[in-house]
Amino acid sequence: MPEEITRDQGVFVFSPENKPVLTIDSGQEVVFVARDAFSGQISSEEDSPEDLDFSRVNRATGPVFVRGAVPGTSLKVEIEEILMEDTGYQCVVPGFGLLKDRFTSPITRRCEIRDGHVYVGRHRFPVRPNIGTIGVAPASGEIPTIQPGDHGGNLDAREIGEGTTLYLPVFVEGGLLAMGDVHALQGDGEVCGVAVEIGARIKVRVSVSSWNIKRPVLLDGDTILTLASAQDLDEAAHLATGDMVDILAQAGFGEEEAYTYLALVGHLGISQAVNPWRTAKVVAPRPEGFSR
Amino acid sequence: MPEEITRDQGVFVFSPENKPVLTIDSGQEVVFVARDAFSGQISSEEDSPEDLDFSRVNRATGPVFVRGAVPGTSLKVEIEEILMEDTGYQCVVPGFGLLKDRFTSPITRRCEIRDGHVYVGRHRFPVRPNIGTIGVAPASGEIPTIQPGDHGGNLDAREIGEGTTLYLPVFVEGGLLAMGDVHALQGDGEVCGVAVEIGARIKVRVSVSSWNIKRPVLLDGDTILTLASAQDLDEAAHLATGDMVDILAQAGFGEEEAYTYLALVGHLGISQAVNPWRTAKVVAPRPEGFSR
Repeated sequence: MPEEITRDQGVFVFSPENKPVLTIDSGQEVVFVARDAFSGQISSEEDSPEDLDFSRVNRATGPVFVRGAVPGTSLKVEIEEILMEDTGYQCVVPGFGLLKDRFTSPITRRCEIRDGHVYVGRHRFPVRPNIGTIGVAPASGEIPTIQPGDHGGNLDAREIGEGTTLYLPVFVEGGLLAMGDVHALQGDGEVCGVAVEIGARIKVRVSVSSWNIKRPVLLDGDTILTLASAQDLDEAAHLATGDMVDILAQAGFGEEEAYTYLALVGHLGISQAVNPWRTAKVVAPRPEGFSR
Repeated sequence: MPEEITRDQGVFVFSPENKPVLTIDSGQEVVFVARDAFSGQISSEEDSPEDLDFSRVNRATGPVFVRGAVPGTSLKVEIEEILMEDTGYQCVVPGFGLLKDRFTSPITRRCEIRDGHVYVGRHRFPVRPNIGTIGVAPASGEIPTIQPGDHGGNLDAREIGEGTTLYLPVFVEGGLLAMGDVHALQGDGEVCGVAVEIGARIKVRVSVSSWNIKRPVLLDGDTILTLASAQDLDEAAHLATGDMVDILAQAGFGEEEAYTYLALVGHLGISQAVNPWRTAKVVAPRPEGFSR
């Protein structure tokens, strides 16, 4: 049985000062149990997001100290399983979301998970769980878990789900991995600011990799994704594209070949446009034989 | 046989002052013959993009005056066929492209089209032709064809291809439709600034629609795309999302229902991040029975 971290062992900032709740060897499985992003403050449609205590939002379970992780290496996080609870919530939070000037009234919607689907009002969609927040400690200082960055954090990338492998750069010894904010379903952009927020048990295998990266990278079957966050989407797009050129160069491409190749079969996109920083992505075909 | 507009009947600005080269009735087929975006100035790998005369770049064939098109209506452009020439070019143009600070040397690559594929250096990809530039005259003034906007223009949306239907808002009588800048293949973002630029014969059916829209909208099988352009991606994303909420509301959604629905199954994305203005898109499932 893998070690398990309970849902009350969490942090609201990514920081080298956080005390690890567990220390593991490279290659070990761990289960992170996470509350939903509201930390359970919303438990019926009567609960208004206006009454949320924001100091208790977006808790990340952890952190885990990984032996052998040192700056210059990365954490390889194989996401093996995301077991969701059977009820989640979606909200419109006044003052939050891409159209916050247009949608100013609080809304809470109960979402039921049944038979591999999520039921929201009159709609029914297949579930596709993703980990909204996953990251490591920065080299110094504190980064709120609501914010994304080079360390990961609140990336809200819908592809970070079962069967994918996320690489996170290591900035401090042990890495200090933490995660939470699972969504039963989320679209690119997460435009209203909130997806189907739900508690979950996340089983991952964590290893130390020699791959030296600047920002999060996801391997997802036949594709590679770079994920870059910045104050605005233009800057995030710039970073994510440069990162993908670097990776293709490691896979044997000339740098200019990589750049022109991406203009044809790479896809620059948006993971989320609603958090304190925005997250852009580049999705590119995984070159034959490329692994890390 | 549909009327045909030759490749030398073109404009470099979208403007109500442009004289129509053809007047048609609503519902008529037209063939727009377009040179590649370089207007044929690149015809071998020896031709450097540094020697380009930029006043002759991105010519749009047209414009066409459509009888019955008046402000408040839209042009419905059914894209029936894009017949490409057999050779295109991709370039790195110094001073242009998302990583223009990193890639400063000119490059020209010949791209051959054969058997439904494009051959670029050691790569071979299936073709997926799209119309990079398609638009109507703005209400007043001139908009260079290199720029996108509410009128369409240089949207570089890879989905604007065969079998799709593009709606463009009409700002002046007749609409004044023009198009060109075909790509044999283009990724989201068009990150190096240039796709496989190629001459083509574009066959479309143009009708006047009563659909009152603010910006371009594409119907593509089971999906709807809104396309919005602005000085930066964040503003473009904001506009594209608002437009999609409006459309879903026309399809019977409550506005708040539409907003939260998009955060789950809508995808906010990037068409291009390299033109003078950026273009964002929202791709959403087409509600059952929705047509225009």
